Amino acid sequence: MTELRRVLGVDPGLAATGFGVVDGDGRAATVVTLGAFRTSAKHARAQRLAEISEFIGALIEEHQPQELALEQQYVARNVRSAFAIGEVRSAAMVAAATRGVAVYEYAPAAVKEAVTGYGAAPKEQVRHMVMVQLGLSEQPSPLDASDALAIALTRLAELPVEEALARTARVGDGARRDEA
Amino acid sequence: MTELRRVLGVDPGLAATGFGVVDGDGRAATVVTLGAFRTSAKHARAQRLAEISEFIGALIEEHQPQELALEQQYVARNVRSAFAIGEVRSAAMVAAATRGVAVYEYAPAAVKEAVTGYGAAPKEQVRHMVMVQLGLSEQPSPLDASDALAIALTRLAELPVEEALARTARVGDGARRDEA
Repeated sequence: MTELRRVLGVDPGLAATGFGVVDGDGRAATVVTLGAFRTSAKHARAQRLAEISEFIGALIEEHQPQELALEQQYVARNVRSAFAIGEVRSAAMVAAATRGVAVYEYAPAAVKEAVTGYGAAPKEQVRHMVMVQLGLSEQPSPLDASDALAIALTRLAELPVEEALARTARVGDGARRDEA
Repeated sequence: MTELRRVLGVDPGLAATGFGVVDGDGRAATVVTLGAFRTSAKHARAQRLAEISEFIGALIEEHQPQELALEQQYVARNVRSAFAIGEVRSAAMVAAATRGVAVYEYAPAAVKEAVTGYGAAPKEQVRHMVMVQLGLSEQPSPLDASDALAIALTRLAELPVEEALARTARVGDGARRDEA
């Protein structure tokens, strides 16, 4: 049996960063908390990044997730948006890594595949499957939170595979020991 | 007379982040410290970003600069490099903004213009003028440190202009008071 793992999924955005803390073992999962953290466009960009980093830090200290999961982007409308997205993602990664929380990143297609079984699923289908997998009767609001939950579920979906690999490795170790 | 201002210039890079702390008033400037902080490619990216953020934070706490100056990039070889550069810059901005240090950003041409008087100056000329302006007998090493000093000097070069504007504003205030 896989132990329960607590994962913080984050969907980073300068204006609104979605978050969702999920407990699961890759088979069943439940929401611990979810929401979106907003920053004001009246604040300087560096200040907004610091607010996001401090918020994620506080969330980690309150809920003690073992891991943080993020979407890894490889595309952006243009180079300038890519700079901006990288900045916000980094604010979240710094908050996690300074607290010893491991960071996992997933391509958008990997999130869709993990949550719906189909790597090119439309956003609506991903959001519907998030509700189904987490037993939610309502659409998580705002939608940034739903996207963050999808990312957390993507990490949790890897656990049974990791467990199987670890078992194989243990069998392998045993075999090597027998030969020695 | 302009008060001395202490500025931390940073040239962010995932492998090596150049830094230089400079005291100046926009007319004369002296180096407080300079160098480059390196991270190991063996560490996870999130870990490296956290190390950079923590290093910049420690530098701020030790030398107490009032401001941090960074190069603002608008171009990158490709979208993927833009994400990476944004991530490292954010790690430095978060370190500054969480400690109440104001962040200033300059386009590469503005740095060249401020340091050499010519916005399309070659890198070598910028590095030479950094030595001249700071009274250094040797090229700062590594070159990332020299680039960080150039960025700090760019911020300091604005001070006489800011001071002149502030004086104008005070004269204007007086005139308005006379009319009342």
